[in-house]
Amino acid sequence: MPISHYALGLDLGGTAIKAAVVSDSGEVLEQIQQETPGSRAVGDVVAAIVDVVNRAVKTWSDIVGIGLGSPGLVDKKRRMIRSSPNFPTWVNVPLSGLISSRIERPIRLENDVNCFALGEYRWGAGRGFDPMLALAVGTGIGGGIILNGELYRGDSGAAGELGHISVDFNGPKCPCGGYGCVERYLGNRWFVEYARTALKDESIASPKDVSDLAEKGNKKALEFIQRQGEILGAACASLINIFDPQAIVIGGGTAQCGEPFFRSIRDSVKSRAYPELSQKVNILPAQLGILAGAMGAAAIGFEARRNK
Amino acid sequence: MPISHYALGLDLGGTAIKAAVVSDSGEVLEQIQQETPGSRAVGDVVAAIVDVVNRAVKTWSDIVGIGLGSPGLVDKKRRMIRSSPNFPTWVNVPLSGLISSRIERPIRLENDVNCFALGEYRWGAGRGFDPMLALAVGTGIGGGIILNGELYRGDSGAAGELGHISVDFNGPKCPCGGYGCVERYLGNRWFVEYARTALKDESIASPKDVSDLAEKGNKKALEFIQRQGEILGAACASLINIFDPQAIVIGGGTAQCGEPFFRSIRDSVKSRAYPELSQKVNILPAQLGILAGAMGAAAIGFEARRNK
Repeated sequence: MPISHYALGLDLGGTAIKAAVVSDSGEVLEQIQQETPGSRAVGDVVAAIVDVVNRAVKTWSDIVGIGLGSPGLVDKKRRMIRSSPNFPTWVNVPLSGLISSRIERPIRLENDVNCFALGEYRWGAGRGFDPMLALAVGTGIGGGIILNGELYRGDSGAAGELGHISVDFNGPKCPCGGYGCVERYLGNRWFVEYARTALKDESIASPKDVSDLAEKGNKKALEFIQRQGEILGAACASLINIFDPQAIVIGGGTAQCGEPFFRSIRDSVKSRAYPELSQKVNILPAQLGILAGAMGAAAIGFEARRNK
Repeated sequence: MPISHYALGLDLGGTAIKAAVVSDSGEVLEQIQQETPGSRAVGDVVAAIVDVVNRAVKTWSDIVGIGLGSPGLVDKKRRMIRSSPNFPTWVNVPLSGLISSRIERPIRLENDVNCFALGEYRWGAGRGFDPMLALAVGTGIGGGIILNGELYRGDSGAAGELGHISVDFNGPKCPCGGYGCVERYLGNRWFVEYARTALKDESIASPKDVSDLAEKGNKKALEFIQRQGEILGAACASLINIFDPQAIVIGGGTAQCGEPFFRSIRDSVKSRAYPELSQKVNILPAQLGILAGAMGAAAIGFEARRNK
């Protein structure tokens, strides 16, 4: 079958811009990666993005649209980054306008975890499931909500901050301002901090380290991963009672803690959510790996074309 | 302006069937109330509902459709009550079919708190707000979710169980199976239980009693109401970070704890949810009182006509 349409997706991260040219059936035709400019100045980042776009368009001249995923709060019209943890000096930066004046394709901006969710829904673990929720568990915990085949964005475009569900109203203060947010237990920094205490091992530097120890038979490491899965499962149980979803897809670095982690999430969900709902919901590991964000951005690129 | 259309809404409760004939602008043209048959047998309840419908149709012959709100789990096609706390022997009862064969109007079934949410959205405190969430805090805590002007029902029709958001994953066991559900702190029975302990007063029989004591200057009563508001606010903060809604409408008996209760809910939300979202969200007391359920059911009745 000939490839009828393809779009370009860009995933703007703090260290790299990952890009993928993706067909409408989800085939990745090309990957491009470029360093994010060290200055993190708007002008430099825009220039780097334009450069990636130009390289992609040179080879794939029929790109129908471009999606750009960025961390942070994207406004409802998806033209502006209101604020971003990776680019702390950016406030209300009209990123899509700055880029679109320099390229010849429609471009649309979207939150990076929303892109991840859409990518997994279109072409990954979430395919065929609707309503579908996605969680990216890494440095922080981000979320995305798919309802009726589309991203749910809320009143101002900020919906889906699923890492900031409080699982303990008396819990520790979270940098977001809240208390006991699920991110405050499972975000990398805290995952490691709690693991060091629980395992009495200051050499632990990542969730993967704990997972490796568990695999080697360290019982405390296994128990710790189960406890972390139980907490994430408690947040998932609330989400299940709220949304009655068909699936929750979980990705990000911490999802690589693998089967023991997923088993405890599922057990926690089964012992906490409404039985009618927990019995049928699918808790699935993400499938698209580090390209999920760029692929989801490409899905946004297809939308940019339709709405240009 | 002449009344062009009106629908009948029925609110099926454990003790009474409340009905209202409602115009499409939200005017209540007539109220009917009838006891729920003590037997709670399906046949008796169906007969009582048919009786109310016939009485209404006699006066208001142009009723375009009928909505029926019922507690419990209503299936997605809204023909069946899968289970109901008020009618524990009912399992998969095809209530709308049993009634529709005996009346001459289209009828549609809906969960009662969904009706409450839709009523407040169409004609009450939630008018003009979208996305809008509603919480009914009484015996239990029920919820309803309005997105794009419609009730969000989820995969199987069970979405919106907002009382079963866990606010403490280590919290007390809830009858639903979960732990630390917000209902487990604010549902009538527990509200009273915790209040008796906090105030060392076994005579407290309802949230209203605590509220009355607070109004009379009892400091412990006021503190207790504030603490309850803070817990409900923690659940609202999670909902705000998830949905980015324009408004949350709170009704039910406990909402009558009044201004101190609402003030502490709002304070809790402000100190817990994302500032960008908590600053703009409206936390509002419900306006339609005990008729909200029947009025919302009437809104469902208008839909029944369109989809018959």
